[in-house]
Amino acid sequence: MKAIVKVRPEPGGTDILDVEMPVCGPNDALVKMDVVSICGTDVHIYNWDKWARNAIKPPLIYGHEFSGTVVEVGKNIDYLNEGDSVSGECHIYCGHCQQCKLGNAHICENLTAFGVSTPGVFCEYQALPAQNLWVNDPKIPKEYLSLQDPLGNAVHTVFSTDVTGRNVAILGCGPIGLMAIAVAKAAGAAQVVAVGHKNEYRMDLAKKVGADHVLRAGDDFEKISKELTGGVGMDAVFEITGNPSAVLTGMRMARKGGTLALLGIFNEPVTIELNDNVIFKCLDIKGIYGRRIWDTWILTTGLLKSGKLNLDPIITHRFKFDDFLKGMETMVGGNSGKIIIDI
Amino acid sequence: MKAIVKVRPEPGGTDILDVEMPVCGPNDALVKMDVVSICGTDVHIYNWDKWARNAIKPPLIYGHEFSGTVVEVGKNIDYLNEGDSVSGECHIYCGHCQQCKLGNAHICENLTAFGVSTPGVFCEYQALPAQNLWVNDPKIPKEYLSLQDPLGNAVHTVFSTDVTGRNVAILGCGPIGLMAIAVAKAAGAAQVVAVGHKNEYRMDLAKKVGADHVLRAGDDFEKISKELTGGVGMDAVFEITGNPSAVLTGMRMARKGGTLALLGIFNEPVTIELNDNVIFKCLDIKGIYGRRIWDTWILTTGLLKSGKLNLDPIITHRFKFDDFLKGMETMVGGNSGKIIIDI
Amino acid sequence: MKAIVKVRPEPGGTDILDVEMPVCGPNDALVKMDVVSICGTDVHIYNWDKWARNAIKPPLIYGHEFSGTVVEVGKNIDYLNEGDSVSGECHIYCGHCQQCKLGNAHICENLTAFGVSTPGVFCEYQALPAQNLWVNDPKIPKEYLSLQDPLGNAVHTVFSTDVTGRNVAILGCGPIGLMAIAVAKAAGAAQVVAVGHKNEYRMDLAKKVGADHVLRAGDDFEKISKELTGGVGMDAVFEITGNPSAVLTGMRMARKGGTLALLGIFNEPVTIELNDNVIFKCLDIKGIYGRRIWDTWILTTGLLKSGKLNLDPIITHRFKFDDFLKGMETMVGGNSGKIIIDI
Amino acid sequence: MKAIVKVRPEPGGTDILDVEMPVCGPNDALVKMDVVSICGTDVHIYNWDKWARNAIKPPLIYGHEFSGTVVEVGKNIDYLNEGDSVSGECHIYCGHCQQCKLGNAHICENLTAFGVSTPGVFCEYQALPAQNLWVNDPKIPKEYLSLQDPLGNAVHTVFSTDVTGRNVAILGCGPIGLMAIAVAKAAGAAQVVAVGHKNEYRMDLAKKVGADHVLRAGDDFEKISKELTGGVGMDAVFEITGNPSAVLTGMRMARKGGTLALLGIFNEPVTIELNDNVIFKCLDIKGIYGRRIWDTWILTTGLLKSGKLNLDPIITHRFKFDDFLKGMETMVGGNSGKIIIDI
Repeated sequence: MKAIVKVRPEPGGTDILDVEMPVCGPNDALVKMDVVSICGTDVHIYNWDKWARNAIKPPLIYGHEFSGTVVEVGKNIDYLNEGDSVSGECHIYCGHCQQCKLGNAHICENLTAFGVSTPGVFCEYQALPAQNLWVNDPKIPKEYLSLQDPLGNAVHTVFSTDVTGRNVAILGCGPIGLMAIAVAKAAGAAQVVAVGHKNEYRMDLAKKVGADHVLRAGDDFEKISKELTGGVGMDAVFEITGNPSAVLTGMRMARKGGTLALLGIFNEPVTIELNDNVIFKCLDIKGIYGRRIWDTWILTTGLLKSGKLNLDPIITHRFKFDDFLKGMETMVGGNSGKIIIDI
Repeated sequence: MKAIVKVRPEPGGTDILDVEMPVCGPNDALVKMDVVSICGTDVHIYNWDKWARNAIKPPLIYGHEFSGTVVEVGKNIDYLNEGDSVSGECHIYCGHCQQCKLGNAHICENLTAFGVSTPGVFCEYQALPAQNLWVNDPKIPKEYLSLQDPLGNAVHTVFSTDVTGRNVAILGCGPIGLMAIAVAKAAGAAQVVAVGHKNEYRMDLAKKVGADHVLRAGDDFEKISKELTGGVGMDAVFEITGNPSAVLTGMRMARKGGTLALLGIFNEPVTIELNDNVIFKCLDIKGIYGRRIWDTWILTTGLLKSGKLNLDPIITHRFKFDDFLKGMETMVGGNSGKIIIDI
Repeated sequence: MKAIVKVRPEPGGTDILDVEMPVCGPNDALVKMDVVSICGTDVHIYNWDKWARNAIKPPLIYGHEFSGTVVEVGKNIDYLNEGDSVSGECHIYCGHCQQCKLGNAHICENLTAFGVSTPGVFCEYQALPAQNLWVNDPKIPKEYLSLQDPLGNAVHTVFSTDVTGRNVAILGCGPIGLMAIAVAKAAGAAQVVAVGHKNEYRMDLAKKVGADHVLRAGDDFEKISKELTGGVGMDAVFEITGNPSAVLTGMRMARKGGTLALLGIFNEPVTIELNDNVIFKCLDIKGIYGRRIWDTWILTTGLLKSGKLNLDPIITHRFKFDDFLKGMETMVGGNSGKIIIDI
Repeated sequence: MKAIVKVRPEPGGTDILDVEMPVCGPNDALVKMDVVSICGTDVHIYNWDKWARNAIKPPLIYGHEFSGTVVEVGKNIDYLNEGDSVSGECHIYCGHCQQCKLGNAHICENLTAFGVSTPGVFCEYQALPAQNLWVNDPKIPKEYLSLQDPLGNAVHTVFSTDVTGRNVAILGCGPIGLMAIAVAKAAGAAQVVAVGHKNEYRMDLAKKVGADHVLRAGDDFEKISKELTGGVGMDAVFEITGNPSAVLTGMRMARKGGTLALLGIFNEPVTIELNDNVIFKCLDIKGIYGRRIWDTWILTTGLLKSGKLNLDPIITHRFKFDDFLKGMETMVGGNSGKIIIDI
């Protein structure tokens, strides 16, 4: 079986290898991969940055966004069938800690993830925990199936508050930021303001997925937010950059009583004047991680079925398996939306 | 000043009369009417049904849906200006009862309404309580301005629960039912199923405003609801007919843990088997009245600004002031959507 | 092993028998019972009423409220240990239907229950699905452990809305009604009004668990509700009788914008005038079934740990295993709160 | 009329003066003060710190916490009567901005406050905007009436999330922190952990109002939080100190998916590592300001009527009007709870 493996603990360090077929355990299903897509997490692993050096032990088959077909079902599992079209939630939860019991499996106390802690999906076949598999709705376009995981991040972030009929800002026009724009538009936001900073390629995509206004480095974000809303400010701001300065930007763009949801990951601490930016304005700040299991998946399916969610502009590149490294280098270069790989 | 007046306590009983100009009290604003529209409430008054006989004391200028221009501001009022384009919330609230203090002015303990308890807007000028006036957003299409009141009913009903990405049924394809379909579609509902019973004209409008499926008398509503949702049932059902049998229909269409919102008014009591239809399925039933003041208006404005809400098919007729009775007869006939009257 | 078995399809029809030890399946745990308690469901089974005739196939060991000790753990289970003190959620859920995926396992599409569909806990040992077992918090008084299941019904009902600082009415002073009174008081309700109808014994218990006012048949419930709340009405009403007339009573006691939660099960349909009682007052009616799995259990544990929840007056009788039928007859007689049985 | 006036722009700078009687405007009511209490805001004004130097223009009668009696009603006002026992919301809102229209008058875009922007209540009579007055419930103990304003801060903070049956930490044992402890206990929190740092006097009060555990400088707050909750952490943490280090403390004490509400005001920016403390744990951070108008007042009244809220230990000192400066110096010294002044 062919697999894309982080072989060496160094930037790049990735080979396409022939490896042994995985064995389907009693609580697993064996999935024949059809399409995979490259996540920012995979870029961290490829680039071998600080997070990756702590989290990853090579050799590892990486990747966690996929669609495929069940070809074998573990003997303890009665709710999946051979031939099922599946995608999957990458976070592996214990099911028994207090968070799992509260319905928050996405922040399970014992969380791991395939493609990070265990072998991933950049390969022809993988044995995955059956409880992590999601049977795809047949009405969803095939090319969107592997995107349900990152789209779930966007959906989880955007639906952490009400956006229908509201004024919304999205900080960051990477793949998940672009998806968040598309999601907010599909949900009937009054106006969607995207902040793209300097990447012209992605700011152009932001317009294509429906942003009403695209702001860039040098714009007075707070002033524009007020001008667009009769002096009130944005009802909701979604931070999807991981840039420390964006936190304060988001706080200033938000209206009194508004929401700032944080999905981006930060390389350094952030210094915040809390009185004016949080307390006096009764701002609600929500940390967001992953996707709710399975409510976000159900909601994501519903959004895709509404016919209002056009992700086509976001899928900018499609490569063959053997050209994976080209795909990864394209992603690293920044002039891309989402990149999908046919297995 | 010309006015449409319910003169005689009988069906019809409506004349166009010359009446005295209203006087602008210290807490009022005097509004020059531009466009008014006919509500189901006005039809009750016209038809002189049981509700109207109890509620209305002729002679009365009726009507409460309008857009117009402020031409005089009462001396206690500092937040309106001559020339403001305004529409208005018809419910007059006291501001001091417990409901008002809780933020529920729409169910004020001392609620009255202009066009019902006090003179309405089917006339050239009216003095209305300043606190009931809503300054229109200049970005909203002119022809939609007088519709914000009934649209607010639809928005209040639909947003009593989450519809984005959800499967939604709307019982009734009268003007507010049609608006509810348009609102649910604008908010990105996964599927909108409209139940139109027998009125072909309105079922055709339901398709035009975006219903994914339009059901009619004789269809097996519960079975179809399950077929469209993988056996689950509708996440939310909105009852906008006032037909007693629709309550049970709604309960059966809803999924376990779903919502049934009731906006229609019933002429007779309804008999319900509660165990299977409400308790075992953990159904949430919400009585809905009017619109929240002013959150629903703000949300309605936001939805209209999203550009996703196409009400054009719903405005089926437009009459001149002197042809008001033609408009009313058209509305009574049932082969119409919303009817607007130029003053 | 001794067990209490519904042997014959008739009223009573219950014998204490020697039966074979149950076998612990791979996904089960074998529990040695310590204390069990009698639920209203068990009374239905004993009385062999219409519901029981449809639901139960004798012979059946019944009972589902218990506390006990794990003595054997199935081979697939790694999250329980021999010696664990456990109680259990009686509802067996599939874990894979849409309701389970939404976090609503208590209304699973494939719901069954031990003590009803499969053998119950009125016996010395029972093999129960491991996923239904709840490891008891050591700080909870021993005599309360088997009560967590019915207490969970009360907690689920009362916390379907906000009660802290609110005016609350509880219709019904049976064991779960009494628990609801205690829960509402523990949560800091402003006033708790209990409606006990005619059972003096239970109305006396209502006072003992903290009801501020206990009303009885003949009282003008609506008038008193308004008098106690400055004319406003009750913020929340909890229906725990199953008496059809109580539904209308509850609607009339509730304030505009209030909540009516329905836990009681009705033997016949209920006829309701919806306009004044639901729609014009924007009442929110919530069907309640079972307990949320596991959020309600976690919340119930928290309440018990607060030290504010005194259930002692509710535990009115305690019998030995061999005197089970005495206990059941006492329960049937109505002059009891909760009855517990030492195994 | 006697009044306590900030006369000089300097620390202290406060005299008791004879001043002219205030005039009751058409939208005002004239209130004869009965009892007033000293807020932290008043201490800022007395100490003439940075905030006060920017916000206050001497001469100013300060103070905003009071109870009194209406002795004259402005001619536009029909909802108050002479003889009404009243307290008042100090924040003066416009009623017409978007925040007011959304029901968020406490964060009105045009917010001012009596005792800060306009003359306050440390005097014998004051003319206050009628819309700011709250008619006291006769069942509330007299000595608690002037405390409803700061108690409202505590109630607003604590009820920004669910506390009943939950594990709760309160950072800060000043008067509002102490009230928050009492409120959380009254609402049936599972455990209330108070962090008092170094003030022994106030940590002793924390125990008296019901804190289950009182932590102090040097304790390992995070470790203790986990030990008290089976390794999970606190469901909710309320920051009521304004000490920058407490923000991080609060984040670490909170469980995954928990809430951190911020009421304290900070003299300097706070530096936060967001990944582990906010994002990966899905923390919800809520800025809190003032009290909701009037929902918080209604809820506060309900809590006081529950009989579960014992504020007696918090009222540590009571002074006569002429001894106001002694009261203020006691408050400045830190060895006090709440100080009330009889007019």
